[in-house]
Amino acid sequence: MQHLPPPEDMTLYGHAESGHSYKVRLALVLARVEHQYVPIDIFLPHAQRPEPFRSLARFHEVPLLVWKDEVFVQSNAILCLLAERLQGLGGEDAGRLAQVREWLFWEANRLGLSLPHVRFARQFAPQDYAPGTQEWLLSRYRQDIQRLDAEFSDGRAFVLDDHISVVDCALCGYLFWADEMGLEVPARVRKWLRRIQQQPGWQHPRQLLAAPE
Amino acid sequence: MQHLPPPEDMTLYGHAESGHSYKVRLALVLARVEHQYVPIDIFLPHAQRPEPFRSLARFHEVPLLVWKDEVFVQSNAILCLLAERLQGLGGEDAGRLAQVREWLFWEANRLGLSLPHVRFARQFAPQDYAPGTQEWLLSRYRQDIQRLDAEFSDGRAFVLDDHISVVDCALCGYLFWADEMGLEVPARVRKWLRRIQQQPGWQHPRQLLAAPE
Repeated sequence: MQHLPPPEDMTLYGHAESGHSYKVRLALVLARVEHQYVPIDIFLPHAQRPEPFRSLARFHEVPLLVWKDEVFVQSNAILCLLAERLQGLGGEDAGRLAQVREWLFWEANRLGLSLPHVRFARQFAPQDYAPGTQEWLLSRYRQDIQRLDAEFSDGRAFVLDDHISVVDCALCGYLFWADEMGLEVPARVRKWLRRIQQQPGWQHPRQLLAAPE
Repeated sequence: MQHLPPPEDMTLYGHAESGHSYKVRLALVLARVEHQYVPIDIFLPHAQRPEPFRSLARFHEVPLLVWKDEVFVQSNAILCLLAERLQGLGGEDAGRLAQVREWLFWEANRLGLSLPHVRFARQFAPQDYAPGTQEWLLSRYRQDIQRLDAEFSDGRAFVLDDHISVVDCALCGYLFWADEMGLEVPARVRKWLRRIQQQPGWQHPRQLLAAPE
């Protein structure tokens, strides 16, 4: 695996309970990209969050990536960018990049919708979810995780092939919290998560996204 | 606006009630890209749908784009691809392409989630939605459409700037059904939709995605 020289002046803004932030920081860490990490208190109203985050976060969300004088938002859009610009953790050719994008959009609309909301409803703000909504989200989670599980039926190690990619970083974003939420995780998905945990530099989201000491 | 020569051998598979199919066909039509359109009966179980759609649609969904010997799925991933490969309706430079992707991922997780489900619950399969879920989806739709409306506060014509892009095609995908669903559409969004309707070649989804006569 080749690595580009460390990018100059890269800063990631995120939060320790944000799986969307985790996706991006995990990709940077696994690709050994040097960067600064700045935690943002997302439970504060946007107007009270510090600059430059407040002005730069177009959708008022973490993660936000500032790379020299360029500003990027939306976790999966950032992962697309990393797959294009970094060697070794994404798309080495146009065909693989097209697959990267297809999976990232599947994630954004399926597992990346159901799972974060199941978690938010159970652990943070049940009052934001009308009665019945948690059941609907949970039934979608079950469909989505079964779809992902079926993907590993041919025995390959990661989602695209035997090499880890930003797609794995996106799809696992909220899954390391599944056990504490009491969610069912099928066997092949569990094995794939263990393979991710064995990557050099891997840490659980709460460690990887904690405030630097 | 420049246009590439018509691509050889391009086929789009879609369905007249699928806003996801509409996004892609609208982008192709507005960019004047010659292609064949094949409707697929998505109310049939996947195993009963015709080949080659059945084998090629990795997530069992429309749209599917076959371009020479390449196969693409996921509507917004296809729009990214069109923005890169076609001149005149997407990203002419890397900065605009990055913005295209950010909006497409916002759409996939926000308006592209709330609005299609509000529609599906109201018009097709209310039994698939637990009590309260429609209210939750509707409250998200209201947040999402207000966010989009705010985007036009500086008076620009389209979402990225004064030029139409694949982002507009994605965001309007389900909005031409809003009136028949009885959904509120804010004034600036309504004006933007009219600007899209004025583009040469524009048609309502039910016309654009009907079976060829």
